[in-house]
Amino acid sequence: MIHNKTIDSQINHRSIRAFKDQPLTKEQLETLYTVAQHTPTSMFMQNFSILHITNEAKRAKIRELCNQQYVGAEGDLFIFIADLYRNQQIRKQLGKDDGRVHMTDIFFQAMEDTILAFQNVANAVESMGLGYVPLGTINDHPLKMLEELDLPELTFPVLGMQVGIPNQEPQLKPRLPLKFTCFEEEYNKDFKVEDLADYDKIVTTYYDLRDSNRRIDSFTKQITGQKLDKAIIDRDQLPEELHQQGLCLDWK
Amino acid sequence: MIHNKTIDSQINHRSIRAFKDQPLTKEQLETLYTVAQHTPTSMFMQNFSILHITNEAKRAKIRELCNQQYVGAEGDLFIFIADLYRNQQIRKQLGKDDGRVHMTDIFFQAMEDTILAFQNVANAVESMGLGYVPLGTINDHPLKMLEELDLPELTFPVLGMQVGIPNQEPQLKPRLPLKFTCFEEEYNKDFKVEDLADYDKIVTTYYDLRDSNRRIDSFTKQITGQKLDKAIIDRDQLPEELHQQGLCLDWK
Repeated sequence: MIHNKTIDSQINHRSIRAFKDQPLTKEQLETLYTVAQHTPTSMFMQNFSILHITNEAKRAKIRELCNQQYVGAEGDLFIFIADLYRNQQIRKQLGKDDGRVHMTDIFFQAMEDTILAFQNVANAVESMGLGYVPLGTINDHPLKMLEELDLPELTFPVLGMQVGIPNQEPQLKPRLPLKFTCFEEEYNKDFKVEDLADYDKIVTTYYDLRDSNRRIDSFTKQITGQKLDKAIIDRDQLPEELHQQGLCLDWK
Repeated sequence: MIHNKTIDSQINHRSIRAFKDQPLTKEQLETLYTVAQHTPTSMFMQNFSILHITNEAKRAKIRELCNQQYVGAEGDLFIFIADLYRNQQIRKQLGKDDGRVHMTDIFFQAMEDTILAFQNVANAVESMGLGYVPLGTINDHPLKMLEELDLPELTFPVLGMQVGIPNQEPQLKPRLPLKFTCFEEEYNKDFKVEDLADYDKIVTTYYDLRDSNRRIDSFTKQITGQKLDKAIIDRDQLPEELHQQGLCLDWK
């Protein structure tokens, strides 16, 4: 195992959900934006934008939609947006048709640009001694969130990020052993759930030590549980949201 | 602007497309996998896998599909895979139905896990003095690539990565100024293509200095050009590929 400051920070990553009541400085903000700016981008199209939300009323509304008390509370809130609007505007204002901007492959490139930028910023955050939590919940109520963020067509909010000075020191969460996720030469289709027994024990111990109410949980219990169970929820609106935004129209 | 080793490496990122003829060591490989392992993951579902391709014949086949001479040439080739197969198997083998694994929101979570892991690995690569290039071209011929990689249902190859010891020193590519991509409080819908004139000049100068054949190019020229022009190409197969893999079935 090779060690350096970047890698040591990466392998010690944990989500921070409690921050000190102190916003980022202008210099920190500028640094994070500059890092985002230098993220690899598919075909040099630079298909992402970042929205920094500081208005209290707006933060409260987003917190309500995400239903997580730390969203838009202490620290800074960012929304990472897959953005084909800018490039559509360039084409439009220069007299061209929309071309392929409504196609799924182009949208996937925008998703990639956006998520790569997210992780790049995340690593910069941790390198400065700050912490963050990714907010997938910004898609729990897609259509309401779109309205709240007042985004133009051809944009799609992918992930939120709450960033700040850590006010907690959570334990490192045990991940799947590499043999289940990293394959040499061929994907191993011959997966056997019994092989997860040891890992399940490790995860159970982790929760046992972490939770004051001692919830008994394991990895396979989570995967077979509510998280993935059938349900009718607002997240089902994602395809509708994408079409409404003029994205992925080739599915029509 | 804040500086540290991680950030300095990030803001100096450039894609490397020429590598020395020396594969990664076991220690480097293990380090990169361990970094991937510790990437944030949506709902703790760990929905990604990495496939490391070393077989020459397979690398040649992938290179042909990507139509880029550096794919699977010097250095190491990885395919980053959005993977819901493992969790479906857990549910199946423990007597549960597939639940929500065929839904778009769950697939997007898997995309996120995969792309976050990609950038995390990318940053570790550069922190070790190595270089990489992201390979979006692994989706240029989606159905053929699926066959070549012999992946099970509920998986989707998102991005490839060619990694190695740099054998070139490309120039830093100028990115869109932050005012176009990073917004305070509200997304600025009032985009005007004239405002890109200065940036276009910078990009033109970059290509002018880089290319021996002195191609004249600018950002707006690229966006209004072939990259985004309407065309019938194999990338149009993406929705079909996803359905074939049992993903995003709620679009049906």
